Amino acid sequence: MYLADESWPELGSYFESQSLAFVPLGSTEQHGPHLPEGTDHLIAEALAREAADRSGYLCTPTINVGVSPHHRQFHGTMWVDAPVFRDYVESLTRNLSYHGIDRVIYVNAHGGNVEHLREVGRRLRDSETMYAIEWMWNESIPELVDELFDVNGPHGGPKETAMIQHIAPELVREDRLEDARDGGLVEWDQETGRQYGARTFYDAIDNTANGVLGDQTDATAEKGEQLFEAATEQLVNLADWLAAQEFEALMPNEHV
Amino acid sequence: MYLADESWPELGSYFESQSLAFVPLGSTEQHGPHLPEGTDHLIAEALAREAADRSGYLCTPTINVGVSPHHRQFHGTMWVDAPVFRDYVESLTRNLSYHGIDRVIYVNAHGGNVEHLREVGRRLRDSETMYAIEWMWNESIPELVDELFDVNGPHGGPKETAMIQHIAPELVREDRLEDARDGGLVEWDQETGRQYGARTFYDAIDNTANGVLGDQTDATAEKGEQLFEAATEQLVNLADWLAAQEFEALMPNEHV
Amino acid sequence: MYLADESWPELGSYFESQSLAFVPLGSTEQHGPHLPEGTDHLIAEALAREAADRSGYLCTPTINVGVSPHHRQFHGTMWVDAPVFRDYVESLTRNLSYHGIDRVIYVNAHGGNVEHLREVGRRLRDSETMYAIEWMWNESIPELVDELFDVNGPHGGPKETAMIQHIAPELVREDRLEDARDGGLVEWDQETGRQYGARTFYDAIDNTANGVLGDQTDATAEKGEQLFEAATEQLVNLADWLAAQEFEALMPNEHV
Amino acid sequence: MYLADESWPELGSYFESQSLAFVPLGSTEQHGPHLPEGTDHLIAEALAREAADRSGYLCTPTINVGVSPHHRQFHGTMWVDAPVFRDYVESLTRNLSYHGIDRVIYVNAHGGNVEHLREVGRRLRDSETMYAIEWMWNESIPELVDELFDVNGPHGGPKETAMIQHIAPELVREDRLEDARDGGLVEWDQETGRQYGARTFYDAIDNTANGVLGDQTDATAEKGEQLFEAATEQLVNLADWLAAQEFEALMPNEHV
Amino acid sequence: MYLADESWPELGSYFESQSLAFVPLGSTEQHGPHLPEGTDHLIAEALAREAADRSGYLCTPTINVGVSPHHRQFHGTMWVDAPVFRDYVESLTRNLSYHGIDRVIYVNAHGGNVEHLREVGRRLRDSETMYAIEWMWNESIPELVDELFDVNGPHGGPKETAMIQHIAPELVREDRLEDARDGGLVEWDQETGRQYGARTFYDAIDNTANGVLGDQTDATAEKGEQLFEAATEQLVNLADWLAAQEFEALMPNEHV
Amino acid sequence: MYLADESWPELGSYFESQSLAFVPLGSTEQHGPHLPEGTDHLIAEALAREAADRSGYLCTPTINVGVSPHHRQFHGTMWVDAPVFRDYVESLTRNLSYHGIDRVIYVNAHGGNVEHLREVGRRLRDSETMYAIEWMWNESIPELVDELFDVNGPHGGPKETAMIQHIAPELVREDRLEDARDGGLVEWDQETGRQYGARTFYDAIDNTANGVLGDQTDATAEKGEQLFEAATEQLVNLADWLAAQEFEALMPNEHV
Repeated sequence: MYLADESWPELGSYFESQSLAFVPLGSTEQHGPHLPEGTDHLIAEALAREAADRSGYLCTPTINVGVSPHHRQFHGTMWVDAPVFRDYVESLTRNLSYHGIDRVIYVNAHGGNVEHLREVGRRLRDSETMYAIEWMWNESIPELVDELFDVNGPHGGPKETAMIQHIAPELVREDRLEDARDGGLVEWDQETGRQYGARTFYDAIDNTANGVLGDQTDATAEKGEQLFEAATEQLVNLADWLAAQEFEALMPNEHV
Repeated sequence: MYLADESWPELGSYFESQSLAFVPLGSTEQHGPHLPEGTDHLIAEALAREAADRSGYLCTPTINVGVSPHHRQFHGTMWVDAPVFRDYVESLTRNLSYHGIDRVIYVNAHGGNVEHLREVGRRLRDSETMYAIEWMWNESIPELVDELFDVNGPHGGPKETAMIQHIAPELVREDRLEDARDGGLVEWDQETGRQYGARTFYDAIDNTANGVLGDQTDATAEKGEQLFEAATEQLVNLADWLAAQEFEALMPNEHV
Repeated sequence: MYLADESWPELGSYFESQSLAFVPLGSTEQHGPHLPEGTDHLIAEALAREAADRSGYLCTPTINVGVSPHHRQFHGTMWVDAPVFRDYVESLTRNLSYHGIDRVIYVNAHGGNVEHLREVGRRLRDSETMYAIEWMWNESIPELVDELFDVNGPHGGPKETAMIQHIAPELVREDRLEDARDGGLVEWDQETGRQYGARTFYDAIDNTANGVLGDQTDATAEKGEQLFEAATEQLVNLADWLAAQEFEALMPNEHV
Repeated sequence: MYLADESWPELGSYFESQSLAFVPLGSTEQHGPHLPEGTDHLIAEALAREAADRSGYLCTPTINVGVSPHHRQFHGTMWVDAPVFRDYVESLTRNLSYHGIDRVIYVNAHGGNVEHLREVGRRLRDSETMYAIEWMWNESIPELVDELFDVNGPHGGPKETAMIQHIAPELVREDRLEDARDGGLVEWDQETGRQYGARTFYDAIDNTANGVLGDQTDATAEKGEQLFEAATEQLVNLADWLAAQEFEALMPNEHV
Repeated sequence: MYLADESWPELGSYFESQSLAFVPLGSTEQHGPHLPEGTDHLIAEALAREAADRSGYLCTPTINVGVSPHHRQFHGTMWVDAPVFRDYVESLTRNLSYHGIDRVIYVNAHGGNVEHLREVGRRLRDSETMYAIEWMWNESIPELVDELFDVNGPHGGPKETAMIQHIAPELVREDRLEDARDGGLVEWDQETGRQYGARTFYDAIDNTANGVLGDQTDATAEKGEQLFEAATEQLVNLADWLAAQEFEALMPNEHV
Repeated sequence: MYLADESWPELGSYFESQSLAFVPLGSTEQHGPHLPEGTDHLIAEALAREAADRSGYLCTPTINVGVSPHHRQFHGTMWVDAPVFRDYVESLTRNLSYHGIDRVIYVNAHGGNVEHLREVGRRLRDSETMYAIEWMWNESIPELVDELFDVNGPHGGPKETAMIQHIAPELVREDRLEDARDGGLVEWDQETGRQYGARTFYDAIDNTANGVLGDQTDATAEKGEQLFEAATEQLVNLADWLAAQEFEALMPNEHV
């Protein structure tokens, strides 16, 4: 059920029996020469809408812009400053509680949002308003991701390329996949961007000249479909699990 | 040109010659028993995307949730508190200046956003970062609106109904148009919701039991198309006018 | 009853039976070559004090400076940034509730304050602290204003000139009325300062070279007295109406 | 010269040769059974206006409400929370710099404002915007105050009573002077309200049942006139001294 | 009992019977050529830890940096902006209430922190969370300070020198005591740094070339020990007094 | 060189040739039944002070309390709310730049601080004030940590136990090591505290009954010494590397 398509009397019916919502979040930021800047919010929205369709839970409209200052050196990257992003997501989520929503899954596809969503979730939970958790699609299917790709790539790599090949194939510049690989950083390890244990980089451009990592030629729409199906299933399971919890059990434990 | 669909090298080409962007904003809030809650952001997005297609200017993704606490008594209305909304729009817009954007048109379809966007526009202009202005679609074609409808209706009325009949007809509950009219407030004047000159109402529900105003049965898809075409033309004209100004001429005047 | 003139035991008597206060607000900003910069707060204070005298309700001291950045190009205009103004008015008003005040009328004479006072009023009401509403004197007597002046003028025009001629005639530079008219903008319509529906001006100086609008030579002290009497009557009526409401009836409606 | 009474062209003449302004600040708070709640802002305004008249320097309208939560237990005390007060005074003052004001004297008559004005003054000076200093009337004439009164009293005592007897005699409840003395705290020393060196009181009511200190029957209008004249002279001298300084000499010293 | 040295089960025992904590605060700022920059936090920590040892009350770790912008012209002075300092101390203190702490003594050795701690204490008390008070060591023993030194010196003077000679003698540059005296300001009175009653200085360097005041050669470790013993005794007495109060008696009085 | 022990003329000498500072940060929070609550700040301070001694770089006093709300259910855990913590660290660090510091290493021993320090570092770098990076001791020596312990444990485990056994052996409750192990969570994997990819826990107590993880009986002071020596060496190397960089090379890259 997609909130923006429903009228208020129809939503009233939903709230009679349910109190869970998916909130999709991504980013609008450079994803190399081969992928659209909307990559992350496209993925988040597609997964959240699909999971909502399959499960019947409510999905809100997408928050399209996230915390992406580390990609700003590349044309068109949009971002919101971190404190503002947190307050925005908190306000938007907290106000959902007015209608009875008491558990939210942030369907996220941008690594840069993770810690901020955790912080917002803590605020909502510590004030006993609501239980909101962050879910990052690829963290729900780590084995599959590892299995499908030699070098899965954290940003603009084969994993995200495959997802867009599946979700919105017309937006993948297939003729730029080799450029993406050759102009970026293909291999890296724990030491990349570190000195004596400290992360010394702040921006993507510090590590990769064209903004992306990994071997994009390893991506196919079929792999994308596998990822999409597997992640959607995880998300539906998570929603079912969450809907089945007692609200009290989701709230903070007592002091020892 | 839709920012989220482009890759960063492609956007680099745009910024070589242009510095204008459309930013669509709406709301996700009750629009009566006959319209979807996404009505306002659907209209804003449709107009901004169409104007971008026709003119070649850049359009960013949509900000789907706005300042709508006055509709909160109806199921599903989403909103962000006003100070947070302003800071969010400001941060998102200001960061566009990093890529050379120096003029922005907020393509708006929610009355509750107007003053907040004016305030944000002032902040950006007074700091000489950028010239950003608010454009509300129906204010660009007041004669046509008056001509098409007996009672045009400020919220969920025939004007918005017609627009959705044109943009997304599958989302209009045609069988609820009479209910919408009969359960809401059809006629009103300057005195509605006022006492001795003071606006004494704060919420939509203070004036209308089902959240909408006007006579929705007066709407047709054809009227919606007329509105859409006329407003799009105004928006394209505005963008052309704005792109043609000198930046200095857009900045604040000197002290006398 | 003027709060600043009373001692605390005397105020204790008032709070035994009453819970309403007038809070006058204006601005200190340019009003052309013929009017003093205090015009707006002088009007607000005069009306609030007179209504308090006639009705017996409490009037607080005046907030003399408002949200006037749009007049800053003219010497001496004072202003407070909008977010700070809102927080200031909110804090000042909220603290009145400590003494039992639960309904406030902002007696306002500056258009630039209106939306900010609405926002503050919403905060106070949504937190169920208090019911505070904005009242702008000329909006309470629109017919009379239209009747008295050919071109009534939104800022520094004949309407405000007449009020000061009545309230503080020694502060009107009678020999500058023609200059005021000839150096400003006499006639305007909906299109003034707009392009294709968008308000493209941010500052008064964008529209008027000397800061004022309308035909000031149309003003007389007699007209000012008529305005003053009519507006005072409206304000007293509003206070009586408000005092007669049940507090619960002033608070937000329940969710449907 | 009183800013609110002037028109903008007249103020333009002032700014051609001068850059100093007085900003009067007080409070609206209980001052015992014998004095009006406006006592502090009445004193500040009277001194600032008189000094402006005698010296020709500019005086702005008064900020009538200050930081007075410690008097809130008494009916009618108004206050603004300290962080909001600081931001308000800062914004109001900083914006004066737009017209060329680069030195401000806060003419203050409320002890509770002192530290906040110091903090605001530091912000303005450290940002090299302006040099603003706090001046508390009685601190400018300590010997005279000591000479005139046996027990001069920090709040609502004979010192403030005498000032109001001089400035606004109709507002002094002469028949309550003995009550004021007998119901309050007449004598105190360094240990009052302290335990082992710590100030353990937060509110006026912790020390005095009727809100005031000292022997009010020791006040006369003649003493008030002496105080008023002496303090005004000090204030004019301070303004002349300040106007004569080089701006650079008022800004922070260099790092050693 | 020092919180940082205890394990959580041990602290659980404390909270079973006690609800008081010492929170030491100082500064890290220039103290002339003879004293270490940590002078103030060393003193605060030594006193708080000693009082905790003798009395059995809990002492938290020290907040080492305070509000010291007025010493910034001298190398190494650290400071936190005042609004941030207040929010930090408030958050740190308020969170102690989660474990049952309901009364706190800020053991302070930096004059620049005093008013900020008072403001924080008011916030905590007015929200009825906790009763927190500021205690400045030298204000608890004014007679002894006056008795021991001819010119006791408010900053880096003999009083503080003697304390460090006692607490951490290895950190006193004994060979620089005469330099300290000769390069600073030895004598001053009420008029120092004032013009016509207004404090016209903002920074230490405005009054003293090497940052300190008074005659440092008058200090000895023996005097320091006397001060330390006397102040510790006062602090223990204060804690005993505070622990013996009813919580309700520490909260704000009712409205009259 | 320890800033708090130096006098300002001595620090002047340091700033003549150096512009780097270590800022130690930890937390004060429960570390099980066997370790003191100060564990994290003790480790950070010991490493920073040792590295400063060996290398000659400057070390500031320690920030003893961090972002630890997730340990609040255990007695005595102190914390500062995350937004306040960030602003505090930012203000403290930014003000160091007044003396010429342009690169800072946050010597950190609390995982909960990491992302906040990254955010602060970004603010300082994006404003081109300074280059500040976070260094977490155990991340600098991952192989050694893995080599020394079967189950190294992220909180209160053998790794931290060994460090305190080395740094402050008197603070380790050796007789509680088995309790620590048996009452906590000894083994865990990626799935611990997760559901379908989402982290569903917010507090330590959600995973471990006594607040700690790992096998504490595996710790020895000798292992602690190895860790301490290895980490100190890494930290000195990092400081040398950082001091050798050009400032420009540390600032953000240009837009592509």
